[in-house]
Amino acid sequence: MSPDNGREQKRLPSKAENFNDWYNEVVEMADLCDKRYPIKGMNVWLPYGWKLMRAIDGTIRREMERTGHEEVNFPLLIPESEFKKEADHIKGFYDEVYWVSHAGQEELDVPLLLRPTSETAMYPMFALWVRSHADLPLKIFQLVNTFRYETKQTRAFIRVRQIHFFEAHTCHATFEDAEEQIAEDIGIIRNLSEALCLPYLLCKRPEWDKFAGAFYTIGIDMLMPNGRTLQLGSIHQYETNFSVPYEITYEDDKGEHLPVHQTTYGMSERLIGAIVAFHGDDRGLILPPTLAPFQVVIVPILSKEVKEPIIEKCKEIKTKLEGAGIRVKLDLRDYRPGSKYYYWEMRGVPLRIELGKRDMDNGMFTLATRHSLSKEEHEITALVEVVSSLLEKVSGEMLANARKKLHENIIEVNDLRDDFEGRIGRMFWCGGRKCAQEIEEYTEMAILGEQVDEEKENGHCVVCSESTDKIIYVAKMI
Amino acid sequence: MSPDNGREQKRLPSKAENFNDWYNEVVEMADLCDKRYPIKGMNVWLPYGWKLMRAIDGTIRREMERTGHEEVNFPLLIPESEFKKEADHIKGFYDEVYWVSHAGQEELDVPLLLRPTSETAMYPMFALWVRSHADLPLKIFQLVNTFRYETKQTRAFIRVRQIHFFEAHTCHATFEDAEEQIAEDIGIIRNLSEALCLPYLLCKRPEWDKFAGAFYTIGIDMLMPNGRTLQLGSIHQYETNFSVPYEITYEDDKGEHLPVHQTTYGMSERLIGAIVAFHGDDRGLILPPTLAPFQVVIVPILSKEVKEPIIEKCKEIKTKLEGAGIRVKLDLRDYRPGSKYYYWEMRGVPLRIELGKRDMDNGMFTLATRHSLSKEEHEITALVEVVSSLLEKVSGEMLANARKKLHENIIEVNDLRDDFEGRIGRMFWCGGRKCAQEIEEYTEMAILGEQVDEEKENGHCVVCSESTDKIIYVAKMI
Repeated sequence: MSPDNGREQKRLPSKAENFNDWYNEVVEMADLCDKRYPIKGMNVWLPYGWKLMRAIDGTIRREMERTGHEEVNFPLLIPESEFKKEADHIKGFYDEVYWVSHAGQEELDVPLLLRPTSETAMYPMFALWVRSHADLPLKIFQLVNTFRYETKQTRAFIRVRQIHFFEAHTCHATFEDAEEQIAEDIGIIRNLSEALCLPYLLCKRPEWDKFAGAFYTIGIDMLMPNGRTLQLGSIHQYETNFSVPYEITYEDDKGEHLPVHQTTYGMSERLIGAIVAFHGDDRGLILPPTLAPFQVVIVPILSKEVKEPIIEKCKEIKTKLEGAGIRVKLDLRDYRPGSKYYYWEMRGVPLRIELGKRDMDNGMFTLATRHSLSKEEHEITALVEVVSSLLEKVSGEMLANARKKLHENIIEVNDLRDDFEGRIGRMFWCGGRKCAQEIEEYTEMAILGEQVDEEKENGHCVVCSESTDKIIYVAKMI
Repeated sequence: MSPDNGREQKRLPSKAENFNDWYNEVVEMADLCDKRYPIKGMNVWLPYGWKLMRAIDGTIRREMERTGHEEVNFPLLIPESEFKKEADHIKGFYDEVYWVSHAGQEELDVPLLLRPTSETAMYPMFALWVRSHADLPLKIFQLVNTFRYETKQTRAFIRVRQIHFFEAHTCHATFEDAEEQIAEDIGIIRNLSEALCLPYLLCKRPEWDKFAGAFYTIGIDMLMPNGRTLQLGSIHQYETNFSVPYEITYEDDKGEHLPVHQTTYGMSERLIGAIVAFHGDDRGLILPPTLAPFQVVIVPILSKEVKEPIIEKCKEIKTKLEGAGIRVKLDLRDYRPGSKYYYWEMRGVPLRIELGKRDMDNGMFTLATRHSLSKEEHEITALVEVVSSLLEKVSGEMLANARKKLHENIIEVNDLRDDFEGRIGRMFWCGGRKCAQEIEEYTEMAILGEQVDEEKENGHCVVCSESTDKIIYVAKMI
C-alpha cells in the first residue's frame, strides 16, 4: 500500500478545537481503518489497526485463561424461532437486526438473522451441555463479529454496523455464584484498564436502562474529551431470565431440575476508540506501551559520509531490544528523518530512538517519548534497561494522567442548576423514578447509575431532598 | 460442560468398515464441534476443536509474516453492485450466496450478500490503495468466515455453510511477478504440510474446472481414506481478470496506467477435516505434535496408600515439560486411569505419561505413543530430552507414513479399463477436451490436472494414443 493508502495528504485538525473532526481524521491518518468501504458503518481494518485490536484481544484471552473461561466459536446466523424465545430481548433488538431470508435463488424456510449478540445462539446449546451440578460453572467466551443496523450517525470503532466483539457467558448453580462471577469480571476490567491506561466508571444502570432481558446491567463507562461518556462494555446479571425460556437446567443433589443463573460480560472495538480519543493529541495517536504494535521505532540519522555503520548499529540495537521481548520497528525507508518522526508520531509509537554519527561516536543514543514529547540522551551500554524502564514509566504516567483527568471532571452536584455541562455530575438521588426523570430532563443528560465499587454515604436527593445513601453519576452519553 | 457435552455415550464405528459414520462420530466424540446447532451445516466450535483451529491459524500467520504478507480484516457484507463487476465470478457463486435484503423493519436500497470469498469486497479498496509501482507488490491476507449455501449433504469441516477461511490476496506489476508469488505460495504449502503431517498433490486444474474468474487454478488435493480426494485449498492466478473491471491500476515509469496482476491463495477448515480423516483410527483422533492443543497428557496412577507424592511428582513433571515449551495437560479428575486413557486417546494427544508408585520408586516413567500405540519406560532424569525427541520422531513418522500411503495409492494407468477405483490414477493425456471427457465419463472420476512440481515425461494419451508430455491425475473428489 502507498504510505497514505491513496488518500489526499491532509493536516490533522486540532483536537481541542474540533474533537469530532480530529477523531474522524486521525483513525484514517494513523492507518487504523479505511472508511471508504462501500457500506456505511462497515470499515476495513488496516494492518496497523488490526495489530492493535489483536493485541487487545490477546490481553483479553490471557485474562480469560487466568479465570478459567474456555474459548468457543458459534455460528453467526440465528434462526428467527430461537431468537424469539425471550420476549424482552427480541424487543430490544428487533429494529437493529439484519435479516437473511434468501440463499441462492431460494427463500429460506425459517428466516435467519445476523447475531446482534449471542445469547439466543448459545443458550439452546447450553440447554444440551448442562445436565448436573458437576457441569457448573460453565464459563465460555468468544471473539467474533456482531451486527447492528445503526440508524444514528456511524463513527469508526465507536458506532459501527459490524462490530468486533468479545463476549463471555457463564452459567451457575445459584444467584450468589453468579454474583461472584461478576466480582471476577470486575477484576478483569481492572487489569485491562491498566493495559489500556484508561480509567473507568462501573455504574449499575437504572432499571429502565438495563440490557434487554437482564436482571441488572453494569455499564463500563469512560469519559471522552468532548465531555460525553462512552460505554466500552457491560456486565449483565441475567438471574434465570434466559435459562427459564431456554430450559437450561441442572439436576441438584436431590434430583430436582433447577434453572441455572447466568451472567454475561461483553466489550467491543470501542476500546480502540477510547484509546484513540482519550490519549491522542494534535500529532496523532498515543498508544499505551503494553498494546502498541511497535513499542519503539528506530530512526537512523544518515549523512552522506556515514551510512552503513549507522544502519549496522541500528540493526544491532533492534536485535538487542527484541531479545528483551520489546517490539521494535527499524525504519530504513528512503525519507528524511523529520518525515519519519511525523509518520510514527501519527501512529502513536511510545518511544523513538534516533541515532546519528555524533551519537554513535559518543556511545550515546537519543530517546524521544511520544506522550510527553520529551527527549533524553543515554549511554548505549544501558540500552535495554533504559528502554524497558522508560516503557514502564510511560504506562504509569499515561494511566495516572488519565485518572487525574477523569477525577477532575467529576463534579459534585448539590443543585441541578450547578453547571457541569461537558463533565460528569455526582449527586444524591432518592431512588424515585420521578426524581430521575426530573434529573434527566433538566440536565438533558443520562443517569449512568450508582458506582458498584463505591462506599455508601448519606445525603439528600438533589431533587426532592429526601435523605438517601444513593449516589449516582450523570452525564451525556455518546 | 459435562465430559460428553450431554450426548449419549456411543462406541466409535470402525474406520475401515464405515469411514463416513466413523468420521461423523469422531468429530463430536473428540470434542471438535457440536453439530446440534439448529442450522444445518453450521456447527459450534467446541473449546478443543477451536484450540486446534487456532494452532493451524497460528502456523499460517507465521508463514504469512515470514513472506511479508500483512493481516487485514474486511467487512463480511458485500453490496450486490460490487459483486456484479466480474461476470464469470458472479456466475460461479450466484446459487450459493446468502442475501441480506432487510434490516430492522426496512428494506435495504442495495441488497447485501455474505461473502462467499472476498475478491469483490477487497478489490474496490485495492483500486484506492494501489497508485504507483512503489505500492507493489501488495500482499495481504485475512482469517475470516465465508458463507456458502451448500445444497449437497453437509459434513463437519469438509462441507459446511459457514466456513473458517484463510485467504491471501496479492497485486503485482507483471505476470512474472505474480508467478513468483505462486512459487512462494507453494513453499508455504510445503511447510504447512510438514506441520499437518499431510502430503498433498498440487494439480493445475483443467480449463473447465478453474475458479470463477481465474486465469488458472491450482488445487491442493489430498487423499482421503475412502479413496476420494479432498481439495484443501487453492491458488489462483488471476492475471488481469479482476484488475480490469475493478480498475486496479498502477502508474509505471513512463506515466502509463496499467492493470495489476493478481493472485490469491485460500485454504479452509477442511485442514482439520483432513487431519481427522487421514490420521485417525478406531480409538479416535491422532493429532500431529506441532498442532496438538496438548502434546502430552499426564495420568497419575494413584493407589489408596500413595496419592499426594504421586500428584506432586506429576506436577513437577508438568512444570519441567512446560519449561521446555511443551504443551501439557495434567489430568487429575476423579476417574480411573483406564477411562482417562480412553478419553485422551479419543482426543488424539500424541504422548501420554503414566506415573504410578512403582515408576516413582524406580525413578522411571511410562510413555505411551498415540499414533503407534506403543509404550516405553524411561528414566525420569531424561524426561525433557526423551519427550522432546519423541515428539519430533512422531511428527517424522506420521508424515512418512502418510506420504507412503499417498504414494501407494497413486496407480499408473495405461488403459482406462485398468481398475483404480478408490485410488488416484496417473496417466498421459493429449490435452484434448474430447479425450478428457472420455476419461471423466468412462471412469466416473474427475481430472485433478497436471502436478505443478512434476518433471515432464513422454508418453501416449490414454485415450487417443497421441504422443504427449502431459501427465494428469484422475480421482473421485469429495
